[in-house]
Amino acid sequence: MSDTVRVGILGASGYTGGDLIRLLAGHPKVEIALLTAERHAGASVDSVWPHLRGAGELPALIALEDVEWPAVELDVIFCALPHATSQDVIKGLLHATGHSLLEEMIAESPGDLAESFRGEARIIDLSADFRLRDVETYERWYGQAHQAPDLQAKAVYGLPELYGADIRDARLVACPGCYPTAALLALVPLIRAGLVETDDIIIDAKSGVTGAGRGLKQQMLFSEVSEALHPYGVGHHRHMPEIDQELSVAAGKPVTVSFTPHLVPINRGELETIYVRLRRDARAADLRMAWENAYGDAPFVSVLDDDAVPATRMVRGSNQCILGAVDDRIDGRAIVIAAIDNLVKGSSGQAVQVMNLMLGFEETDGLTQLPLFP
Amino acid sequence: MSDTVRVGILGASGYTGGDLIRLLAGHPKVEIALLTAERHAGASVDSVWPHLRGAGELPALIALEDVEWPAVELDVIFCALPHATSQDVIKGLLHATGHSLLEEMIAESPGDLAESFRGEARIIDLSADFRLRDVETYERWYGQAHQAPDLQAKAVYGLPELYGADIRDARLVACPGCYPTAALLALVPLIRAGLVETDDIIIDAKSGVTGAGRGLKQQMLFSEVSEALHPYGVGHHRHMPEIDQELSVAAGKPVTVSFTPHLVPINRGELETIYVRLRRDARAADLRMAWENAYGDAPFVSVLDDDAVPATRMVRGSNQCILGAVDDRIDGRAIVIAAIDNLVKGSSGQAVQVMNLMLGFEETDGLTQLPLFP
Amino acid sequence: MSDTVRVGILGASGYTGGDLIRLLAGHPKVEIALLTAERHAGASVDSVWPHLRGAGELPALIALEDVEWPAVELDVIFCALPHATSQDVIKGLLHATGHSLLEEMIAESPGDLAESFRGEARIIDLSADFRLRDVETYERWYGQAHQAPDLQAKAVYGLPELYGADIRDARLVACPGCYPTAALLALVPLIRAGLVETDDIIIDAKSGVTGAGRGLKQQMLFSEVSEALHPYGVGHHRHMPEIDQELSVAAGKPVTVSFTPHLVPINRGELETIYVRLRRDARAADLRMAWENAYGDAPFVSVLDDDAVPATRMVRGSNQCILGAVDDRIDGRAIVIAAIDNLVKGSSGQAVQVMNLMLGFEETDGLTQLPLFP
Amino acid sequence: MSDTVRVGILGASGYTGGDLIRLLAGHPKVEIALLTAERHAGASVDSVWPHLRGAGELPALIALEDVEWPAVELDVIFCALPHATSQDVIKGLLHATGHSLLEEMIAESPGDLAESFRGEARIIDLSADFRLRDVETYERWYGQAHQAPDLQAKAVYGLPELYGADIRDARLVACPGCYPTAALLALVPLIRAGLVETDDIIIDAKSGVTGAGRGLKQQMLFSEVSEALHPYGVGHHRHMPEIDQELSVAAGKPVTVSFTPHLVPINRGELETIYVRLRRDARAADLRMAWENAYGDAPFVSVLDDDAVPATRMVRGSNQCILGAVDDRIDGRAIVIAAIDNLVKGSSGQAVQVMNLMLGFEETDGLTQLPLFP
Repeated sequence: MSDTVRVGILGASGYTGGDLIRLLAGHPKVEIALLTAERHAGASVDSVWPHLRGAGELPALIALEDVEWPAVELDVIFCALPHATSQDVIKGLLHATGHSLLEEMIAESPGDLAESFRGEARIIDLSADFRLRDVETYERWYGQAHQAPDLQAKAVYGLPELYGADIRDARLVACPGCYPTAALLALVPLIRAGLVETDDIIIDAKSGVTGAGRGLKQQMLFSEVSEALHPYGVGHHRHMPEIDQELSVAAGKPVTVSFTPHLVPINRGELETIYVRLRRDARAADLRMAWENAYGDAPFVSVLDDDAVPATRMVRGSNQCILGAVDDRIDGRAIVIAAIDNLVKGSSGQAVQVMNLMLGFEETDGLTQLPLFP
Repeated sequence: MSDTVRVGILGASGYTGGDLIRLLAGHPKVEIALLTAERHAGASVDSVWPHLRGAGELPALIALEDVEWPAVELDVIFCALPHATSQDVIKGLLHATGHSLLEEMIAESPGDLAESFRGEARIIDLSADFRLRDVETYERWYGQAHQAPDLQAKAVYGLPELYGADIRDARLVACPGCYPTAALLALVPLIRAGLVETDDIIIDAKSGVTGAGRGLKQQMLFSEVSEALHPYGVGHHRHMPEIDQELSVAAGKPVTVSFTPHLVPINRGELETIYVRLRRDARAADLRMAWENAYGDAPFVSVLDDDAVPATRMVRGSNQCILGAVDDRIDGRAIVIAAIDNLVKGSSGQAVQVMNLMLGFEETDGLTQLPLFP
Repeated sequence: MSDTVRVGILGASGYTGGDLIRLLAGHPKVEIALLTAERHAGASVDSVWPHLRGAGELPALIALEDVEWPAVELDVIFCALPHATSQDVIKGLLHATGHSLLEEMIAESPGDLAESFRGEARIIDLSADFRLRDVETYERWYGQAHQAPDLQAKAVYGLPELYGADIRDARLVACPGCYPTAALLALVPLIRAGLVETDDIIIDAKSGVTGAGRGLKQQMLFSEVSEALHPYGVGHHRHMPEIDQELSVAAGKPVTVSFTPHLVPINRGELETIYVRLRRDARAADLRMAWENAYGDAPFVSVLDDDAVPATRMVRGSNQCILGAVDDRIDGRAIVIAAIDNLVKGSSGQAVQVMNLMLGFEETDGLTQLPLFP
Repeated sequence: MSDTVRVGILGASGYTGGDLIRLLAGHPKVEIALLTAERHAGASVDSVWPHLRGAGELPALIALEDVEWPAVELDVIFCALPHATSQDVIKGLLHATGHSLLEEMIAESPGDLAESFRGEARIIDLSADFRLRDVETYERWYGQAHQAPDLQAKAVYGLPELYGADIRDARLVACPGCYPTAALLALVPLIRAGLVETDDIIIDAKSGVTGAGRGLKQQMLFSEVSEALHPYGVGHHRHMPEIDQELSVAAGKPVTVSFTPHLVPINRGELETIYVRLRRDARAADLRMAWENAYGDAPFVSVLDDDAVPATRMVRGSNQCILGAVDDRIDGRAIVIAAIDNLVKGSSGQAVQVMNLMLGFEETDGLTQLPLFP
């Protein structure tokens, strides 16, 4: 067995794909063996991502249909395709290749990882397709029937700080959305510790523009976004059911949150200001204590002391999540704040962290870059 | 009586002062007769505000102590001085000039406006100094005793849509802060109509950088603010007691709000996302109806239809406040959104609107500029 | 004859169209009678341009093919359609309507303006279609034969400060591009006065993003442009031949300039730094003098004194062009700087200025807004 | 001898100091042993630079006067103090400590590096103080006599691609300014190869805001810079004599350039568009060839192919310099473009590169981070 694993990125020309290349090119135990992109098939990475010209030898981008499965011999497949496409691709690959790496992938877990590694690729999906355990919920929010419900049932929700053990044994991991990542890291320990009421959680989220992807939409043009600020998807953003789902697991009962995202003219960065009603005379200090207990060893979650509040500039370009809590002026309420880089901890960095866990690497491999400020 | 009034701006080199010049230079019934600025005394407006070089004939900036009272013969004084300085200046002027325009100013209101106009200047203060009716509250939040409690007692809170009648007869008006302006325009009609609970109001505010003024602070440098986002003053921002004060008036009982401002990398614009618990099975549509009832004739408040949400780009450079309401996913809750330009409706534009009311002008005089987008 | 003229804007949903509405809605002698937009046909102005909701009564957007010519009875047509489309539209209208307002429009000029006004609309084209006098040059740079060479021959180049007299009598005016506007206002008086060598003119231009229009291009997404800076169209930008053409007229011999535009992450604003070799021992002061002589009465050109340099913030949202000159360190060279708002003096504002000249209005009607800073 | 060297950063609270910490904290052969900052003395790195909270164990900031020389036992001192302060500090240290590490530092070079390492610290100065070889030139541009002319005479100009051999043996290196770095990397090989005229070099430079440092100046406030663009220091920017100096060395005769910097609303990034007159019928392709010859092995200079132009987004956060050349429309002229991150290759990254050379490390140690885009 080689000392590096071979990874592929499906959808390498989007922001998520680009940041995956940036992180994986610096990963000590990884070789990037496959990069797909439909419109840019045939192009070099340099031409699509000029900032990556110093990334070393990389394969040219090819169309997904031109990938030579299984000859490409991947150990890990990062699927950074658009929502709804991911499930088709994975299902399609499965049917196309018969008794293949992908069919095996969803078979029962093999005995010895070291033996069975190559040929049984792990799939890390960065789309929304496998995040919702209930395919009916998926259908309601995404407006179409799920194309791969069997795979869905085997997918693990890829938030390492909460599901580390499951991720280690998983063959298909659905990485969380950026908004759910911040919300769940902040709220799950508080709910598990019984510190907050679960029927009165208000999440006011603010995100940089890369969260909307690289697709062409008028509302994402520079001139529309710059010097401007507004909420969007009020009452119907697709990350809501994902947050509900995981908070319900934590609470042991159905939870519905209030969630309002806002678009802010920055490239990277996501901040959630969460308003909670406290239980049992808890104070902000108790919330911090609950986080410390939950994340004592976690390399990518930091809890700020009393008077400090998270800011997106603390995490730009890094895989960190910063948490803070302050007592509210309204008795019995607290303000909880979480900051992440939506493209890293909210997407590509988290996917690399998931890979590290799946393959028994150091959790921080490839993720040691400090934030860039200014 | 001339067909224009003579106005002075104390503190003409800050952003608020600059925007006052911009608006008043285009006002059909105003002559700018005095501009003060301490560090820039002696300079022309062009040199301090190069964008105003086309504003026509304007007096040079002079130091406040060099103003020749009462020879300057002002009808209206806009006081755009820093907090805590305003009260000293106004009090000082009062003592220095004896039986003066300013002493008269706080005497009982004269009979006929047309007769008594000149010589009894109206003062429109844009600082925080006269906003809090209770001087003890002032002292607690501003860390010093109020220097002019008598004047305080006579000041009118200058939110035209709520206190129009009082403003018409006032000699000293304290213009609201930018955050309170948006919050009160959104909330007061809802509280008056009994539609929202007053003990569970959560205001998540986002503001452009000009709200912090033109003073030199490291955290306001471009490199600190750009590509970044963070909350500030969590739990102790000075606009809180002002919001409490006016909501308490509206509710007829003490109200304490949760209020968390965030700094966003834009120049102008303020957005408040307000989370309210509804009373009496009210829905978002009822909130919109309450606004329509309250603001039917108001030229500077607009209520959006069902699915539209306010955005700061709708108001950039204009005196408009845009309101919207959406039902929350949590039963019995609604999300209320208000957008203003913090320098215009949140400061200088509102001051001009106040002047228009005081002097019996058209409320929109000098304030008809459409927003600038992009 | 009514006291307002009826104007139409073809292409009202682009940035140029939007800024035309903003300016014309505040014009004292204009009624906006027609707005066309293909994709948004049927929509209200509010829905396409929420910032214009306070603009008063405006017609809904309709598709160009649904315009009822000549019943709409326009006095002025602003054509803000994409390049190459303009010529087809104007030519198409001509053929479609027979003996129509448009055919007459290109007939010889009528006698009395007051009599013949209605029914013989003036056309102000904001596209590039009629800017190049030589249709072969047009074909070379735009890759297609010109569709309306006859109309081309009758078009007047719409830079009011240089061609005011021609514009007054014109029926079809081709408004200059934003880059040529700044370059020509800076250079033509210097060339006419024989102060600069014409074979060594280097124009380094920087522009805000709205100059690229509202079309969907990946390179105009916020995340691509923000926090970034780069030259584009190096050696082949389409504004080059337009600059050459007009400088050649001024010089009386062929002139070829070096022109390199750069994209800067701002919405509005264009700055050109022009490096010239001086003739006859001229100094920067002589350049300023030449401008003063040329623009003494011009309301929209300002010349800065010695040590001041133009900045885009001096013109944001206004129709001003600011000029400055500084002696270079290299003997016999000077640095000339021009700043405009690319959407106003570089496009829509200039078009309104052109209309004012054509119709004998005050040149500044509808263009008195001061710049917005910050 | 330990396997890491001990480094100190004087002036750790400015942007240059902060980026030095970021880079050095990730350097495999370095231990950060000293951090000084006057106003922040006593503070932790976390509190001054919250984004560096994940940087591992770092010493607290102390005042310069509290440093225990020579007990702190530094191998390398990075001096990131303000201009004019650096020379005083270095001279002062020298006098204060007698037969000290710093006196030895300016003694003649020792024999064996490995033996003499500790106790003879290398000084890498990031200020302008030791860049100008001629102290009279220094005095003329900086308005004061140089305080350490002897040290000046021994300083090496720290542009590794040009002075690598000298840097290896130096005890005091003066790192170039950001503007000179880009200009010299672009121009020196062209001048050395005799491809460009040296009396007609026009440099139009655009820089992000961090180049101005973290000091409090009104013109660097977000609201002044955002959505704006302007030239500054036209005719008298202090980087001019530094560029002249090094181009004169390359040309073997005095060279005076035209240099005009512009402030652009981005945090990081510097782009220089350089207009050159070619010699000997050279074309842009010849310029590229000259660069390839000069920089064949250099890890931090990249030359773009024909039609590609450098952009700042290609280098954000990295130590790369990207070069491109295009033939101008004016015969015999070419346009040369260089892009760097002003804080990295223009300052802190270059200083680390210098250190690597001085100490015989891999030139890329600690500098392998890929650019961050978006």
